[in-house]
This record gives sequence, structure tokens and C-alpha cells, in this order.
Amino acid sequence: MVHNGIEYGDMQLICEVYNIMKDILKMSNDEIADTFDEWNKGTLDSFLIQITADILRFKENDKYVLDSIRDSAGQKGTGKWTGIASLEYGVPVTLIGESVFARCLSSLIDERGRASTQLKGPNVQSFDGDKKQFIEYLGQALYASKIISYAQGFMLMREAAKQYGWKLNYGSIALMWRGGCIIRSVFLGNIKSAYDKNESLENLLLDSFFTDAINKCQQGWRKVIATATVYGIPIPCLSTALAFYDGYRAKRLPANLIQAQRDYFGAHTYELLDKPGEFIHTNWTGHGGNITASTYTH
Amino acid sequence: MVHNGIEYGDMQLICEVYNIMKDILKMSNDEIADTFDEWNKGTLDSFLIQITADILRFKENDKYVLDSIRDSAGQKGTGKWTGIASLEYGVPVTLIGESVFARCLSSLIDERGRASTQLKGPNVQSFDGDKKQFIEYLGQALYASKIISYAQGFMLMREAAKQYGWKLNYGSIALMWRGGCIIRSVFLGNIKSAYDKNESLENLLLDSFFTDAINKCQQGWRKVIATATVYGIPIPCLSTALAFYDGYRAKRLPANLIQAQRDYFGAHTYELLDKPGEFIHTNWTGHGGNITASTYTH
Repeated sequence: MVHNGIEYGDMQLICEVYNIMKDILKMSNDEIADTFDEWNKGTLDSFLIQITADILRFKENDKYVLDSIRDSAGQKGTGKWTGIASLEYGVPVTLIGESVFARCLSSLIDERGRASTQLKGPNVQSFDGDKKQFIEYLGQALYASKIISYAQGFMLMREAAKQYGWKLNYGSIALMWRGGCIIRSVFLGNIKSAYDKNESLENLLLDSFFTDAINKCQQGWRKVIATATVYGIPIPCLSTALAFYDGYRAKRLPANLIQAQRDYFGAHTYELLDKPGEFIHTNWTGHGGNITASTYTH
Repeated sequence: MVHNGIEYGDMQLICEVYNIMKDILKMSNDEIADTFDEWNKGTLDSFLIQITADILRFKENDKYVLDSIRDSAGQKGTGKWTGIASLEYGVPVTLIGESVFARCLSSLIDERGRASTQLKGPNVQSFDGDKKQFIEYLGQALYASKIISYAQGFMLMREAAKQYGWKLNYGSIALMWRGGCIIRSVFLGNIKSAYDKNESLENLLLDSFFTDAINKCQQGWRKVIATATVYGIPIPCLSTALAFYDGYRAKRLPANLIQAQRDYFGAHTYELLDKPGEFIHTNWTGHGGNITASTYTH
């Protein structure tokens, strides 16, 4: 299930960079295919990158077949299953979740057609930056986001293992996914190595190979997201990956405010930073009595 | 359920703008409270905005209580329930989904503490733009994202109504949520008006009030996301809202590539833009025979 969920994520990430190359950089299918071929020689080397290049180049009657394909993605349900499991286990597998929702949104093709005539996009000039440099940033954004997605998938397995008392061999799982699987890639070998080095690794992102890889990519990753944001190109997976990275590496998140709100309206109590395990309720309005705005639970 | 899911989203959005004001603009709790008070006089007027201002100002022993609260958000499960229902019904309710995952991530507080010592953020200068202008953009980003979240929640209800043959009175639902509910706001009156004008409105975003409102906000919204991206502040809900907007208004999404990939590796077939309903399989490699990389379904 996690393998297939990750596959949904990888496919959506490839779509997002394809879309940026096509609509911001105005590259032709052949130029985009050349880029994927180039990427396929490096850290992004994988079956899905390779077939994407094949697909981009494929013509029938002198026309690119890809350009005529209806942009409404189907699914058989394994990505959805991963998303539901992530919510059930309370693990933030955000990238797979967004990739499933992206397919759902794509399938509203007629509604999108109507919306496209009413909802305005941003006013932007055509791209006049350094194209070659930006393509390099795109590769970095794709790679960093892919690392996040796999880290999230392994977090889900870790949590399930914890709840069921399984002893999972994460390195072997990565190795297994290289054998004939759709997500087969050089990258899975790096995951295997990380768990070979430390079989009780807490999170893939904390292995030095991946820590360094993401750090090297982060400037390009951020530029790609900022640029797509300004140009109005939808990038649900590239951006959720970065939101996860920035949240995961945050010693402090603003969830203290959520806890205060929950206590204010529902007397759900909160803990103090220096007294975990002690649950406090505050009378926030100073007018005496508990504040419960409703009898719902939140 | 949808009411409570929307509440999760509203709370997370408020946290994201609070975090930006605190960590990028370096505003004090009182300055942030003043901003929320100001917003509470306009289109953002709502119970949650009002209590956030109260919370920000609240002191005990001369110290802001909020600053000492543990940033690990709890939940009772109604947001999770909305997320699961969205996946089950195939409706892209991305903002609520991200808000639930944001709470999950916040609860990994010890792991985040360890990660924060290893994972690097971007190198950035302190903010030297026009602070007053940026606060205005923040209000626009919050408002636009909120519109997206409610539109998504109503899409979920619409889909459930379709599947169960319910006749829902969407305007009355909005009105009901004003009575004592945690998400009560002026905004719900605008939703009621939209459905009063057109009870078979396809999507909230297509009502002229909301179309115009988002359009007026979009420049500021994009600037806020681009800035938080560069500064390394996690904004899962602000950015998923924009990704949805840009996807929903896209006549063409890159899901044609997903369909081609699925056909390449699994012979799942695709449709052509001008021949919907006709399912085609292509031998993409030109070497004859079907290409099926695995026996999984995707």
C-alpha cells in the first residue's frame, strides 16, 4: 500500500515539473524529454522518469499523443487507502494525500472548464530568468520533494510497526521496491544504505546523506515554489513537501495557539512547555467560569 | 462533521498568519492582537479571530500565557473524519486534510526538537519590506484561503448529496453555522446570500461575490506564500489553498501525463480530449505487445 501511495506522489511530482517546464518555461515536448533524460543519468534515475521521456517524445500521425490525452486522472484506490491509513494512524503523509486529491481535482474536468472562464489568474510577464539555471532548480525541487515523500511513507510504516509490534526491516523494504516495481530507482539504494548504516534510524531525513541532499536542494526548491506561486501554476505536492520540511525542522510550531483556542472555546486544557503531562485550563476572558462555546468536541 | 473540519482549517490558517507575523515580521503579541482586532472589523469578522486577539493579550504573572503553551495540538477526531470522508467521496478537500496533518506533525514535538538541530533552514536577511503593506497581504491571504476551505467543504456536502440523493439547503446550512458555532462569522452570511441568489450554484467560487473577493486578494496571497517559502515558515494550509485555486481554474491540468504513465506501465488506457468515453491503449515503446511493469493496480 505504501509503495503504491509513493508511486502516486512520484507521478504527481513529475506532472508538476512538466507543467512548469511547459507553461512557465514554454519548453517543447522534446526539450522536456531531453531534460528528463538528463535527470535520468543522475540522482533522479528511475523508471518513472525514463518512461516520462518516452511518453513526451511519442508521436502518432506526426502529432504528440500526450498533448491529446484527456487530463482526468483515474485511480484504483491504493493511493486513497494510503491517505486514509495516514489519517487513521495520525502520520502526516501529506504528499501522498495531496497527490490523491490532485487526481480528484483533475477528474472534475467539465467543472474546471467552466471555472476557467470565470476565475482569474495572476498578471505576469513571460519568464525572462536564466532558463538553464531554473531547470536545475526544478530537478532539485523534484529530488527534495521525493525525499520528503519517501520519508513520510516510512514514517507511516514506522507508526504501524509501533502499533502492531512489528519488527520491520526498512532497508530490505527499500530493496524490495527496486525489483520490477514502478517506483524502482537508484534512490531506493540510498534508502537501503541509510538503514544499513543505522537500522533504528528515526527518520530518513535524519540520515546524513538525505540531510545533505535536501540542504543542497533547498534554495532551488524554494525558488521553484515561489516562481510557480507567482505564475499561477498549481503545485500541491512540491509545496506540501516544503511545508512538511519547514514544519518538521521547526523546534516551535504555532500549535500553541491551537491549544489555547481549544481551551478558550471548549475547555480542552493545554500543557506548558516546561510541564508536559500537566493539563491546565485557563479562564481566558477573565469574567469567571468556563468558556464553552458549544458542546461539540474538537 | 464538515463544520468541525472547517473549524480545523480556520484555526490552522490563523496559526500560519500568526507564525508569519511573529517570525518574519517580528511583531509582538500585542501588535499581532491589534492586527486581529483590526481584521475583526472587516470581512474576517469572526469568533475565532476575536478569541485569538484575546489569547494573544492574555497574561499571567506579567507573562504572556500563549508563549509558554506546548505546541503539540490535540484532536478529538472530527477533522480526521472529514479528511477520510473527502478521500472516500473523492472530493479534494485539501485544506482540512492539511490542517489535520499539521496537528499530527505538531504532536511529534520531541522528534521535531531533534530534527531542528540537524535540518537547516534557508539563509535569509531580516524582513525589510513595507510591513504595513505586508500585513494587508496577510489578511488577504487568510481571507482567500478561507474562501477556498469553505468552497471545498461545500463541495464535499454536494458530492454526498449527489450520492445519497439528498436535497440540501446550502444557504440554511451556512446560516445554521452562525448560531453559537465556533466558526460563526460575517462570512457565513455571504455564503447564505450566494445560495439565496442561486440555489443550484455549482461552486461557491463561482458566485460573483467570492470570485471578486478572491481576485482582489490574489496578488497579496501569492506574495505571502512566496515570502513564507523563502523565509522557511511552514504554511501548509495557505499554500494548499492556492494550489487548489490554481488547479480548479485550470482548463488543462498535467493529469494527461498521469494517464499516459498509467497506460505505459499498466495498460490502464486513456481517453482523448475530443473522444471522451473511448478508452485507448497505446504500445508506447514501439516494441510490440502490452507493457505491464507489474501486476499491481494503480
